Amino acid sequence: MSDLANIENTTICACATGNSSGAIAVVRMSGPQTLEILSKVFQPKRDVKLQDVPGYTLLYGNVLRSDGSLLDDVLVSIFRAPHSYTGEDSAEISCHGSNYIISALLSLLSDNGASHAGPGDFTKRAFLNGKMDLAQAEAVCDLISSETEASHAVAMQQMRGGFSKELEAMRTSLLQIVSLLELELDFSEEDVQFADRKELQRLLDESCSQINTLISSFKLGNAIKSGVPVAIVGATNTGKSTLLNALLREDRAIVSSIAGTTRDTIEDVINLDGILFRFIDTAGIRATLEQIEMMGIERTYYKLRQASIVLLMLDSTNPDGFKDSIESLSKKFSGGGQTLFILLNKCDINSILPDSEKTEATIGNVKNVLNASDLVDQVRAMAAEAGLSPSAILPISARQKLGLDVLESMLVSSQTNLKASGNMVMVSNMRHYTALKDAYNALLRANVALGERVATDLVAQDIREALYSIGTITGAISTDEILGNIFSKFCIGK
Amino acid sequence: MSDLANIENTTICACATGNSSGAIAVVRMSGPQTLEILSKVFQPKRDVKLQDVPGYTLLYGNVLRSDGSLLDDVLVSIFRAPHSYTGEDSAEISCHGSNYIISALLSLLSDNGASHAGPGDFTKRAFLNGKMDLAQAEAVCDLISSETEASHAVAMQQMRGGFSKELEAMRTSLLQIVSLLELELDFSEEDVQFADRKELQRLLDESCSQINTLISSFKLGNAIKSGVPVAIVGATNTGKSTLLNALLREDRAIVSSIAGTTRDTIEDVINLDGILFRFIDTAGIRATLEQIEMMGIERTYYKLRQASIVLLMLDSTNPDGFKDSIESLSKKFSGGGQTLFILLNKCDINSILPDSEKTEATIGNVKNVLNASDLVDQVRAMAAEAGLSPSAILPISARQKLGLDVLESMLVSSQTNLKASGNMVMVSNMRHYTALKDAYNALLRANVALGERVATDLVAQDIREALYSIGTITGAISTDEILGNIFSKFCIGK
Repeated sequence: MSDLANIENTTICACATGNSSGAIAVVRMSGPQTLEILSKVFQPKRDVKLQDVPGYTLLYGNVLRSDGSLLDDVLVSIFRAPHSYTGEDSAEISCHGSNYIISALLSLLSDNGASHAGPGDFTKRAFLNGKMDLAQAEAVCDLISSETEASHAVAMQQMRGGFSKELEAMRTSLLQIVSLLELELDFSEEDVQFADRKELQRLLDESCSQINTLISSFKLGNAIKSGVPVAIVGATNTGKSTLLNALLREDRAIVSSIAGTTRDTIEDVINLDGILFRFIDTAGIRATLEQIEMMGIERTYYKLRQASIVLLMLDSTNPDGFKDSIESLSKKFSGGGQTLFILLNKCDINSILPDSEKTEATIGNVKNVLNASDLVDQVRAMAAEAGLSPSAILPISARQKLGLDVLESMLVSSQTNLKASGNMVMVSNMRHYTALKDAYNALLRANVALGERVATDLVAQDIREALYSIGTITGAISTDEILGNIFSKFCIGK
Repeated sequence: MSDLANIENTTICACATGNSSGAIAVVRMSGPQTLEILSKVFQPKRDVKLQDVPGYTLLYGNVLRSDGSLLDDVLVSIFRAPHSYTGEDSAEISCHGSNYIISALLSLLSDNGASHAGPGDFTKRAFLNGKMDLAQAEAVCDLISSETEASHAVAMQQMRGGFSKELEAMRTSLLQIVSLLELELDFSEEDVQFADRKELQRLLDESCSQINTLISSFKLGNAIKSGVPVAIVGATNTGKSTLLNALLREDRAIVSSIAGTTRDTIEDVINLDGILFRFIDTAGIRATLEQIEMMGIERTYYKLRQASIVLLMLDSTNPDGFKDSIESLSKKFSGGGQTLFILLNKCDINSILPDSEKTEATIGNVKNVLNASDLVDQVRAMAAEAGLSPSAILPISARQKLGLDVLESMLVSSQTNLKASGNMVMVSNMRHYTALKDAYNALLRANVALGERVATDLVAQDIREALYSIGTITGAISTDEILGNIFSKFCIGK
């Protein structure tokens, strides 16, 4: 492995504690020269020879610049190969969290022979040194970016090797099949048939079903990790952006920049009661289209199909527009597993509220009026006619923030399955999902071929393909390109 | 000390590594129950009894929730009283830097009896337990926010006790004087004079001069810590904001929110070549004033007097306005120690450049034209007439970013004294500065009284006052209010 050869002689360093300054920062170093470099810049208070200290030694002392001046007093944790995160000699220097000190310390380490680590370099070393497989390494990255209990549980399960164990079991049984088939192949001229074809078929069916279970878990796993996709659709000027801004209000932790693998854009993610919702901005939709708008609308429809929840915004001050919006949605709404909420926006300035309540409208009022309102009945009838069955029709005011907590609790209760993830092994990574689908397709081909008594070597080749795909997940098979893609998503210092 | 009694029984915890998520986060815990609480949530891989481990033990293991589920695998550093930062039993838990894990871990510690630490609580404990004096504690805060080598050096010197040592020496000699005076007082009816008045006078003079040296170092120390104050003044629409924005360009580290003690507003700070410059926004000035504008203008003048460097902006497309701007500045410009640069802005659209160069003006061109330009000569003459001696008159274009690097290098070279701070003890803290001035004034009074043979007890009282002021700096004398003010400026986790 070219990467392994390359890293064997280098020692890397990076700040591992994020960008904002805090009380403490931790600068990490890993590689064969760790203790040699450390001994040049660090003077422990205790009288020890740094190069001889055992692993798990914690030392207090001073970091001195080359001119002998004091840069900082620090705590240093020393780990010896192979009993460290990376599997190499390594050290964690806990210094004061000043930007100046961090950058001066990194320069000092670099002046003494360490090189600056790139994203994920420490974890990459852990993988290359056999401390963890690739799926576990990827889980480290997911664990760090986890924002909810559920996403934490999925990542933790994967990091602890739960997913890898399932894959390994599958690999073992597929390898068994393929070796039987290849044994046959070696003796093919003698027309011997070692493998019991029925037993082979059974094993293949079993593997297919296992993989299929994993593939099916992706929808849930991905929703837990990246957020439940929610599309807000509706004609222009119905208040889609106002609603999004109201939901994203500042008193709430917003995860605004999870760079996901399933998305081509960065979308707004909100944590509602431990569930992430990922709001997808869409262009307005309408039934009658100018040619030039088609592409934008097609994108909206594409996003719409990907959404688990669709919020259709109607402008309650303009009932004439309802029919058009509802009909154009119904043409593209799959309904299968998708939840639809219809929102009657601008109810604060609409006749939906009695005059007396227009100015001091409360959520309670909005609800009471809801039941009485002809407008809601009218929308329900139109939806039914268009073949839509909305889970709720809610009058809201995005601008006045009325009815939004009702909407939020409905969003949460529509997704309670995302909270009870337990210790279930779940696929949450697009790369794994794609590899599993490739493996599944290869096994399906093998299965068909086996039934049709196709030549043994072709069946074996299909199974080998499946094995290859599964191998890329744990890194039993890996290329520089795969590794490059994976570790570039990490933060520096991990 | 009420605070000390209060903390003796509590154990605190906080995240010590800033807000942004990184690879690693460090959660700190300190107090008598540290190991007890730790033993409830942390399961070390090694078979040790947590409550019995010696200080400086580094352990790897799992943090488990109360239901036994795994929250994270962590490294824990354990310190035993009094050999820790706070002087108490304490632990640093190095976990994965996920927001979820950090907050879940803090909740877990809190569920088991730890309370959440407020800003500076760990350092406050270090002070109350005698691990450091108050000036050293404040230096910890300065060290963390240091952004340049010079501010780092000042904070480090103070944290290592250099400043405290000087104050302690001064306190000792003042205590000697006061005890002599008070001995006299005890025997006053016998009209004995123990103290040699001349010797007393000499000691007082010496102390005054020492304090005065420290007081004088504040201007430099404060400039190093908070930035050299630079006022940009000029008539409205001369491009002051454009200049500021151009100087604050994004490819540069900007310290935009140092909450300083000498300032009532947050100002923009730029790090130029290791020197911080703090740019002060001012309202436009002009000679003829409406009554209603007076207050704003007065504030501008106040800021002007505080600035070490004044940048006077003139709009080179409007030479008629030069005289007014120059004259109104000259009325308020002290000149004493202040550096003045006059900037002829908008030179890209001004006749100051030959036609051929107006569109592709370069800094070189600007300089060449500068020497030839009548406009510059004209400004120089006006400035001389108004009694101003600008260090330079520079044609620039804030909008086109022309001539700005010349300006920047001139700013830097006007302040080179800020780079060679070495190990000099320097006052950089407004609280210390105020206390020193109080002490100085008290000693001056004592000195005068001594000369005028005022009653011994009054002299002693003045010196006691000076001792009190000096004592507040190191915390030999401290009140809950003083401590509250100081530690509220810290970040949480320190």
